[in-house]
Order: sequence, then structure tokens, then C-alpha cells
Amino acid sequence: MAGNSFGKLFILTTFGESHGKAIGGIIDGCPSNIELNLEAIQRELDRRKPGQSRIVTQRKESDTVAFLSGIFNGKTTGAPIGFTIQNENQKSKDYSHLENTFRPSHADYTYAQKYGTRDYRGGGRSSARETACRVVAGAIAKQILIIKGISIEAYVSSVGGISLDKSHKELDLSKTEDSIVRCPDKKIAEQMISRIEEVRKSGDTIGGVVSFVAKGVPVGLGEPVFDKLHADLGKAMLSINAVKGFEYGSGFDGVKLLGSEHNDSFISDVDGVSTETNNSGGIQGGISNGEEIYGNVAFKPVATIMQQQDSVDKEGKKVELDGKGRHDPCVVPRAVPIVEAMAAITVLDFLLRSKATQV
Amino acid sequence: MAGNSFGKLFILTTFGESHGKAIGGIIDGCPSNIELNLEAIQRELDRRKPGQSRIVTQRKESDTVAFLSGIFNGKTTGAPIGFTIQNENQKSKDYSHLENTFRPSHADYTYAQKYGTRDYRGGGRSSARETACRVVAGAIAKQILIIKGISIEAYVSSVGGISLDKSHKELDLSKTEDSIVRCPDKKIAEQMISRIEEVRKSGDTIGGVVSFVAKGVPVGLGEPVFDKLHADLGKAMLSINAVKGFEYGSGFDGVKLLGSEHNDSFISDVDGVSTETNNSGGIQGGISNGEEIYGNVAFKPVATIMQQQDSVDKEGKKVELDGKGRHDPCVVPRAVPIVEAMAAITVLDFLLRSKATQV
Amino acid sequence: MAGNSFGKLFILTTFGESHGKAIGGIIDGCPSNIELNLEAIQRELDRRKPGQSRIVTQRKESDTVAFLSGIFNGKTTGAPIGFTIQNENQKSKDYSHLENTFRPSHADYTYAQKYGTRDYRGGGRSSARETACRVVAGAIAKQILIIKGISIEAYVSSVGGISLDKSHKELDLSKTEDSIVRCPDKKIAEQMISRIEEVRKSGDTIGGVVSFVAKGVPVGLGEPVFDKLHADLGKAMLSINAVKGFEYGSGFDGVKLLGSEHNDSFISDVDGVSTETNNSGGIQGGISNGEEIYGNVAFKPVATIMQQQDSVDKEGKKVELDGKGRHDPCVVPRAVPIVEAMAAITVLDFLLRSKATQV
Amino acid sequence: MAGNSFGKLFILTTFGESHGKAIGGIIDGCPSNIELNLEAIQRELDRRKPGQSRIVTQRKESDTVAFLSGIFNGKTTGAPIGFTIQNENQKSKDYSHLENTFRPSHADYTYAQKYGTRDYRGGGRSSARETACRVVAGAIAKQILIIKGISIEAYVSSVGGISLDKSHKELDLSKTEDSIVRCPDKKIAEQMISRIEEVRKSGDTIGGVVSFVAKGVPVGLGEPVFDKLHADLGKAMLSINAVKGFEYGSGFDGVKLLGSEHNDSFISDVDGVSTETNNSGGIQGGISNGEEIYGNVAFKPVATIMQQQDSVDKEGKKVELDGKGRHDPCVVPRAVPIVEAMAAITVLDFLLRSKATQV
Repeated sequence: MAGNSFGKLFILTTFGESHGKAIGGIIDGCPSNIELNLEAIQRELDRRKPGQSRIVTQRKESDTVAFLSGIFNGKTTGAPIGFTIQNENQKSKDYSHLENTFRPSHADYTYAQKYGTRDYRGGGRSSARETACRVVAGAIAKQILIIKGISIEAYVSSVGGISLDKSHKELDLSKTEDSIVRCPDKKIAEQMISRIEEVRKSGDTIGGVVSFVAKGVPVGLGEPVFDKLHADLGKAMLSINAVKGFEYGSGFDGVKLLGSEHNDSFISDVDGVSTETNNSGGIQGGISNGEEIYGNVAFKPVATIMQQQDSVDKEGKKVELDGKGRHDPCVVPRAVPIVEAMAAITVLDFLLRSKATQV
Repeated sequence: MAGNSFGKLFILTTFGESHGKAIGGIIDGCPSNIELNLEAIQRELDRRKPGQSRIVTQRKESDTVAFLSGIFNGKTTGAPIGFTIQNENQKSKDYSHLENTFRPSHADYTYAQKYGTRDYRGGGRSSARETACRVVAGAIAKQILIIKGISIEAYVSSVGGISLDKSHKELDLSKTEDSIVRCPDKKIAEQMISRIEEVRKSGDTIGGVVSFVAKGVPVGLGEPVFDKLHADLGKAMLSINAVKGFEYGSGFDGVKLLGSEHNDSFISDVDGVSTETNNSGGIQGGISNGEEIYGNVAFKPVATIMQQQDSVDKEGKKVELDGKGRHDPCVVPRAVPIVEAMAAITVLDFLLRSKATQV
Repeated sequence: MAGNSFGKLFILTTFGESHGKAIGGIIDGCPSNIELNLEAIQRELDRRKPGQSRIVTQRKESDTVAFLSGIFNGKTTGAPIGFTIQNENQKSKDYSHLENTFRPSHADYTYAQKYGTRDYRGGGRSSARETACRVVAGAIAKQILIIKGISIEAYVSSVGGISLDKSHKELDLSKTEDSIVRCPDKKIAEQMISRIEEVRKSGDTIGGVVSFVAKGVPVGLGEPVFDKLHADLGKAMLSINAVKGFEYGSGFDGVKLLGSEHNDSFISDVDGVSTETNNSGGIQGGISNGEEIYGNVAFKPVATIMQQQDSVDKEGKKVELDGKGRHDPCVVPRAVPIVEAMAAITVLDFLLRSKATQV
Repeated sequence: MAGNSFGKLFILTTFGESHGKAIGGIIDGCPSNIELNLEAIQRELDRRKPGQSRIVTQRKESDTVAFLSGIFNGKTTGAPIGFTIQNENQKSKDYSHLENTFRPSHADYTYAQKYGTRDYRGGGRSSARETACRVVAGAIAKQILIIKGISIEAYVSSVGGISLDKSHKELDLSKTEDSIVRCPDKKIAEQMISRIEEVRKSGDTIGGVVSFVAKGVPVGLGEPVFDKLHADLGKAMLSINAVKGFEYGSGFDGVKLLGSEHNDSFISDVDGVSTETNNSGGIQGGISNGEEIYGNVAFKPVATIMQQQDSVDKEGKKVELDGKGRHDPCVVPRAVPIVEAMAAITVLDFLLRSKATQV
């Protein structure tokens, strides 16, 4: 209720500030008797961790997850899975100058006003560091989904103005991890990397888009009328730091189409019913129809820039902020595993929910 | 949990199918001792109802709401508010041909698969008729919000390719209701109306965008980290029938900006702290910052078209569907009060939630 | 969240005041494709309705339920089931003398203080009339449970000091409905009836105990650690008007036993594992173990008595209250179907929850 | 939803098995800006910890809590409070004989059946060790409640057949901690201690009752109709390991009273409205009325006894179990802080919920 939990049946609750002792979480409702590959979970964290390439923040954190409960002899027991990730990089001194100052487009001002107090060391609770816990839960969700034949993949489709002009169907997503920007098209990836390096050199930041696709989702996931599958997917994505927009299927471009162009005709063959086109994005009436579920998530440029900015302090006095610290020039390469995690958690949650429809 | 409730503290639960006896709902958690203007609630319903103008469906429903509880001597009592809206237009015969057929891009197929049965009279539960109940709850939420100085306004900003090129700041939103398409710019409105009439004549449909703005929202609404204010606003909008995308503040366009362009500088004057620009859309770190909250909601073209379409039936056999019935050529004029309702419910819910932060 | 909903997956939300237009509710999460016997639902309501015998209130209400949605061609569709029960007995004049007065041990004072206003016609929302809606949902739950071989039975085991000295195992529960007091032992039933008539003649009221037993509950229902099956059963019962206590299995008497006396030995035969004794009341570690689940629910004497009582009014001035109206001298005969309903709703909810434990 | 969370606004989620690495939890929704006394939290844990006296288990655990987040410069920040308690006593070898065996009246059988697997080291998740996390959250809740003038006290009122015959009003609760059995009446306490020692010597266990009283609770806490204050208090208590019953106010004894005896007359003086008697237990219509809230919680005898018992193994074969390990002969002395914790968490949760009733 205070907003630190996500999911109805597969529930992730997280805790932790960027510069506290540790971050962590509890996964409640994880199905029992699932054999977990703990190394694979760590690998997902490594895809998100800082310092992994030259185009992300050079901060150093190993982001090693420790599981404290809910797993016995390599299998889930049905009990809640508690886990922690130690914060190794807690040099509070870097942040002492921020105690009384509100950084532009950060959460400093809103947190201070809402809570009447603020952990001013880094972003505190508002730091994207919290998303590491989502990646842990997402990695577990993915391992369960794959047993059911469901896969989730995300990739960078836009950095600044440089965009892929191909849909996920035309891309070879097995190539996403080949480039440090996580764009599966080699040529566009290189342009994106150049753009990010250029922006970083100028002490600035740039936004981008992460696209995702879920394959193998069975018919029937999603609960009318408020908990439509895409509504909760949208909430999942919009809850990620820096996200400003979400669309699925035909999305914002679909508004320009005629109904006769947009409608997806049903066809039928030996494999059952499917649709000829997929403007619906695999969801009709809020419920998955068996087609691929796909969409886009828009990330704004990171607020921390290496340039001087005007702002105000607690007393409302004008102050000048220097650009300091080690931050991402563009968040999307590291956001890919986070988008995958939130999609996986959401789909698994609805998979469990779908089981309660019939006795 | 089965998806027919929205909100955590101000909770709307709805029931009803398009061709059942009635639709209705329960509003639980409505603050007590609020004097309600019941005529104003009905007026909001009238903005949504069919038959209101030549560019919407010509179906006839008076959409009269009857309140059954929770209001005594004109005031809310704190008890749940039960209400019903009778379905006057229940001619099931219009729909008998649909018993075994799945209409393209409707929810027929997914409902049938999910539930193993289907109320095939019209859209049943998947019909946008359900949104009338949202408008009732939204109208009550609006009346409470206005006491706190908070207003919610929506308008049509795009129909097909015809779009406003002005932001809400440059528009006179008091003119929205002057045009049947609910676009506040008279010239663009006329173009939109022409486009809808043209599309209707061809038996087709077209999509559009509804924009919204919430003014007067105090600092501090929104719960980190999963229940960010914009995440729940996004879910609220994405749960409306036919919505394919949501963005707030700078939205999808913001991804092209540099951090130095996107950041909103804080300034301070006698009225307190504010921001010079508002790319943040009034929300920072998921919490309202006192600026105007604004965004866009994308609606796809209505799936029911007056043209012949291919489809399949229950057994997977190919069938031809004739275009029948009286449907909207474009949903956005009637969607304006729905978008307002969902925004109002969401903001009021978070207003109540914010009260629980401090003892 | 405002307390008018019960259940996590099979969710009942109710509305309505004793003297408003109607009471009613929404059942969300009802499994689809279940053939419902609507007459059987009405029969359950008839077991609860006023005027059914000489030992209950002589108020007249037919308590006829009307279903508005969620049922099509006799079967549940998976959509929410909306229903109403009209209030036929709305003579507000009977209650005008209560506008400014707080009746002893009623909810008048606490409602007025909590909400700053009060529907003073009868009990308003605090009236036990609301429980009719629980009986509707419970009757549906029972019909679903019986398909799975689960039955729920309740009976009166004590009125004032007159108590059954037999456990449910020694009683013939098919005889419960043979007596108007709903005690399956004819001799004790007659004593109870005499006691109630005596108490009624003196213008007084008396308390009692309703016992329940659930048979055929499969192993595995109940969620550790907070949602133990008996914890939610206890909450379900304690939420019924006038309930002061709940115990299950050995209950309060169990505290006097030694562990060696209390422990239920496991035995095994062709039918599988069972226990020799059942002090555990069919629940171990909060999870059903396949044995019969049984317990007791304590009801205080009804607060409305036909005697003069001292009280205070809104201004704190002393007032004398006359005994008026038509009320139950003892609530337990009519509480039997309510206890059954709450048990059925709870068990069905956990049955649905148990499905989400494994993928 | 999987049952490891408690509360709606002040929410405790726990994790951990008795013989895993650690137990712990997350408190979400804790009001911000509260100065916490961490030593006082540890003192509450010390009241629950094993080895504290000769009449409890002699197992050794320091039960030291470590806070990982949500507290900054000694104050709560509004962010979730993550905490862990290391398990120091993880000698799994003690439990290897239990891998295939179901101990009578333990949760071994039901967990194995429900989850298809089981952490057989000690009680695993079903161990009362989990309640240490409740004590942490309860200790924080108490510190917040006391700021609002609300205190919660519990004490042992019965061990086996030895019972206090005084109500909380006649007792000096400041003396509860003077005796190792936590009964405030010295003479009865000594009898209880002798009884427990006697039972322990015979390798057996015995049940008991913990009584509680909450003073200073303001009028207005509790949500009709399902979330009555006593219904959630009841659930809170029934969720504690080994609890078999709950009653409040007049409780089970109240069923024998006449309405004219049971009703609590309102009186009014300079301090406002109060009641002459308090059979209502401080709650009317599910809402606190300003009087003292009190009740009783029944604990069965601990299932682990130091005697040989018959049972069955996984294959249903008969086995003999030896009494092994170090367990409590009577759980109630250590249950006192747990009952207080659950009461405190519940009351604080409703205090926060009451804030959302009016805008």
C-alpha cells in the first residue's frame, strides 16, 4: 500500500537506499518445487550493474545477491524468498553537499516535502539502484516462465533520435547482447554508441526507448476490466525510474489507422486460431490471445548532468549546483534487463491469477 | 483481484454486461460528510452517453444513475455508495448471430477461451458500456477534489492524423464542450468532425488521442517505488477500452532531448518553490511536485466496422461477418469524460493515501 | 480497504443500509461455467430472513434477491455477479427519535464520531441486515464447494446457559432445520426455545453459540504465516454482527490439556494419512490436513431490548430510551446461515488461492 | 496474498526459516520522521528470545536485529524498513531424522502436501521463530502508538488450569515482567511456574492464555463491515503459532448474559462520553469507542514433547518418534511480547486507516 510491493500473487516487495547498508527484497508467492539456477540470476544482475561498459556509469558495485530463505536443496519451497545485495559504494561524503539542495528533475524536493525528511545520500530510496531487486525477482520469474514455454526479450530501439526502423519480427534478438548498447542491429548500435559517447563528453545525458516482446504467452492472461494485461504491464514499466511513456501493439501510431486497417483477422489452421496481423499486440479485451505481446517504453534523459545548473535550497534560496559523481550518460542499455524483469514478473503474476478462474 | 476493482482507498468496483439487466458499482472509501450534487453526476454521464451528437453511435440509452446507499440527506455517510444504471437497450436479437463467431479485434475470442463460456450479447462484460460506472465514480471524485482546489480536464487532441499543435497551456479548455468532438480549438475541431463523418460514411472507424491536465494537485501525492503517481495514472488510462498507449510530461518526445534541455530548474518566489519548465509533467520520483500534471492517451480505431470482414467461428471454420449495429465511428469524443473520471479517481485515491504517511 | 470487501480471490463487496432503498453486493472472482441453482440461493436467504418463526423478530421482509449480471443462460460467466435485495420495510418514522440519541451497545456513537454524520434510520450500515448479502455469496460458494465434495454445516449449540454437551460427531446435523432454534438435539432445542420465549416476554435478549463444521476440505488450504486458514475463518466470524469470540478445534478448553493429550497421532490406511484424534480441528500450521474443520462462534445478547434504558444524546445530555421496534430476542437461530455463509466464502477463497501455489 | 504480509497501511512482510541463514522482514508504510529507540526494539526481542529463563526452551539465540534501510540519522524516512536476524543455531543434523517423518500436530504433513516439498530442518517456515520478526515490527508500532497516548500490555492469565480470577482492571500490570511466567499476580505466577516445571520434568507440555489490554485508543478505529477492529485483532492473534481461540470484551462468557445485563450505558461528564460498564471491550459496531480494548488469546500445548510418539512417514509407514531437541514446556511466557506486537501492529494500522475517512 505504501508502494513498495508489486504483483498480486507473485509479489515482490523491496527495500533499501542507494547508500544504506544493503538493498533487498522478499518474493512472496513464488511457486514451490522449482529448481532455480542461481548463477543465471546473478548473470541478469550483471547485465544491469554499473561499470559494465564504457557507455554506462563507471561506479563500481559487484551487485552480488545473497538468498536468505525460501530455497532449500536448490529448489523453491513455497516460503517467501528473502534476499539482500550489499551496498559496497557507500561514500556518503560525495553527497553531503546535497543535504539542503534540491537537484533539478530529481526526487529530492518531492521526497523532502512528502516525508518531512530525506535520506540525502545519493538518491536514497528514489535511486535506480532499487531496480536491482526487480532484476532478481524478474530472473526467477523468467526461469519459471521458460518452463511454461514463455520467453521475454527486450532491446534498445532508440537513443535520442537514432531509432531502429524494424519491428521485433524483423530483428535477430539473439544479437542484442553482442553490443554494449543492447541494440540487435549492429549498424544502428554503433551509431547509438557514438551518440552516447558524444553526449557523455559534453557532460550531458540523452533518453531512449526500450522495446520488449513476450513470446509463448498462452491465451487467457489478463483480468477484465481494470487489470487488463497491458494496463498492468504499463504500470510495471511506468514504475521504472525515468520512464515517461508506454505503448503496446500499434501504440500511438495506431491512432492514425482506420478500423479496417487496424483490425486483426482471425485465421485458423492445424495449430488452432491465430490472427493474420498483430496490431492488437497479443492482447484483446485486456486478455492475451496467444500472439506475441510487444511494446515500447520511453526513458527520459538522466537528470544528473556534469554541468552547472541553477536550483534552490530548503529555504528557497537560489543555489548553483556543480555536476559531480559518476552517472549514466544514457540509461537504456542498463534498463534492458529491468524492462525484461518487470515484464516477466507481470506475466507470471497473471499466469498464477489465471489459475483461479475455474475450480 | 479478479480485476473489477480500481483504487486502494477510494475503491470503485463495477459489474454489468452491455445487454444484461443493469450495470452498476460500489464506491467504497468515499470520504464522509461530503455534500454531493447528483445533477452534476448525471451531467457527466450525459457527456459519455450514446446518441449525444451526430458523430457518435446513434444507439439510445438514457444512462440514468440511481443511488441505492451511502448518501443520506444529500451527504456521503462514509458507507459504500451502491448504484445502478439500467440497460434500456437490451435487444439480444441483434447479437444472436455472434454466438459462435469471434469478431476481429474484439474480446470475443479471448473471453471465450479464458472463461470457457461467453455472454455473446454485444460485448458483454468487455463492452465500453462498463465505463459509465467509472464516470459515476469519477464525477464524485471530481466533486471532492474541487473542494481541495484540484481540477481535472481532458480534451481531444488528435483524430486520425489531425492533431492540435498546441500544449494545454496554450489552449482555452473552457471551450472543450463547445464542439461535439470536444477539441478546444474551433478550427481543428471542425476538421476532426469532418474526418469522423467521412470515415463513418465509408463504414469505417478511426482512432485518436485524448489529452488531460490536472491542476492544483498538491506536492506529495504518489507512493514510491511501484505506485508512482504516473504509473497508476497510466494503468488507469490503459484500463479504458481501446487504449494503446500512455505518456505524461515530455513523454515519447522526451527521449530525444538532452538532460540539459529536459531538466526543470527549480525557482522560488513568494508562492514557494516551483519549476521553470515542466517536462516532468508535474511528477518527480513518482510524486507530484505541485506543477500541472498532464499527459496523452492513445485510442485505437473502434473494432466494429460497417464492412464485411473475414473471421472464424468456435470450430475454427472461416466465416464472413457483416457490419451491423450502431457503433461509434471514433471513440474519443465520448472518451473525454472517461479519461477525466479515471484521472480524478486516481488523484483522489492518492490524496487519501498521502494522509497515511504521517501520524 | 474501507472494510466492505471480504476475500482475496472470491471477493464479496457489499453495500446498503437497513432503511435505504436496497442492499446488495458484487461477487468478483466467482469461477466461470458453474451452473447455479437460484432457488437454492433464495432458500438460504429464507433461513436468515425476519419473521420466519415465533422466536425471531416479527419484522416483515421478503428478502428477495435479484441478480443483475455475471450469470448467463443459468451459468456463471466469470464476470462479476451484481445483486440487490430491496428494502421493503423502510418506515423511517420509527427511527426519528434516534437522530440525536446513542443507543447503548449499538454502533450509533462510534459511527457518529468516526464519520461526523450518521444514517440514524435503524442501524443504517451497522444493521445486521447487511448479512443478507453475505448469505447470497455464501450460497453461491456452497454450490461451488459441493461440486468439490466440500460441505459446510452450522447449528446452535448454546442459548444462554443451555448448551449441547455433544460434539458435532455425536449429532445428527440433518435434523438442524427441524427446530426453529436450529439445534439438532430435539430435547435441548425445546429448552432453548422456552428460554428464548421467556426472555422475549420480559422484553430482554440473550446470547448464544453457533458451531460449525466443514467436511471434505482437501489437504493444503491456508497460507502461512499470517493467512492461516483458521485466522481468516476467525476474522470471517468475528466480522458478523454481535460476535464476541471464536475458537476452533480444542479451542479455549485445549489450554488445559497436556501436549501428550492434545497431539493428534497420524495413522495411515488405504485411504491415506489421517489423524486418530482431531484436537487440531482439521488445521495444522494454518493449513487444512484433510480432517473435519470445526469451531464455535460466540454471539452476545442483542443490544435492542424492550426496556427503558439510560443513555446520552449528541450534546452529552442524559436521556431515557424506550424499548421500541421489532427485534430478535436471540440472534443465533438466524445466525446459523450467516456462519455457514462466511465459512463457505472463506473456504472457497482459500481453495482458489491454493491453485496458485504451483505452476 | 501468499500470506506472509500483515496489515493494510502499516504492512509487515516476513521471511525466513528456523534453520536458514536468517529471518527478517520489511515494514512498509511506517510513518516518517519518527525517532526510533533501537535499544527498546532489541529489549522487546529479548522478552521473546529463547533461553531467557528456566521455564522456556534452553536453545541459544541472541536474536539481534540489524536494520538495513528506512532509518536515517535515527529517524524513519518513510522508506521501507528492511531488517534481518541471523540464525545462530543452525545445526541441521539435529533434524535429519525428520526428513521423511511427520511429527504429530506439527505442520510437517500439511506443508509437505501443500508445497510438494519441505524444509525439514526444524519447523522451517512453520517455526515460531518467525514471530521474532513480528516483535520487531510491533516494537516499532508501540513506539509510534505511545506518541499518540496509546499503550498495549499483555500478560499470562492462565497456564493449564491455573487461572487469574481478576480482570485487567484489578491487576497491577507493571508487575508483569517481575515474574518469569509474566503473570502480574505474584501468587498465581508462582503456581504457574511450578506447574510448568512439573510438566517439563515429565517431558510434556501445557497450554495457556495470554490476555491483552489496549489503553488510550481513540474513538473511531475500525472499518465496517468486514474489517471490524476486533475481527482484525482476532485474525492477528489467530495467526500466531499455537493459538486456538480469541475473544474480546465479555467474550464467550457474554453469551450467558441478558441484553439488559450486557449493555453498556453511556454516561457523559466533563471528559466527554464514556460507558459505565465495558462488556463491549472498547469496540461497538467494529469501531473503537474510547474505552479500554481487552481480550484473551488461547494457546494449545506445544506439540513437541520429550516422549515417544507414534506417527507415519512419507510412505505412510508407521514410525516411532523419540522426543528430542530443546523446546518450550509452555509457550505463553514467550508469547506475551508476540501478542503485544500483533495488537500494536493492528491498532497502528487502523489508526492510519482512520485518517483516510475524511479529506
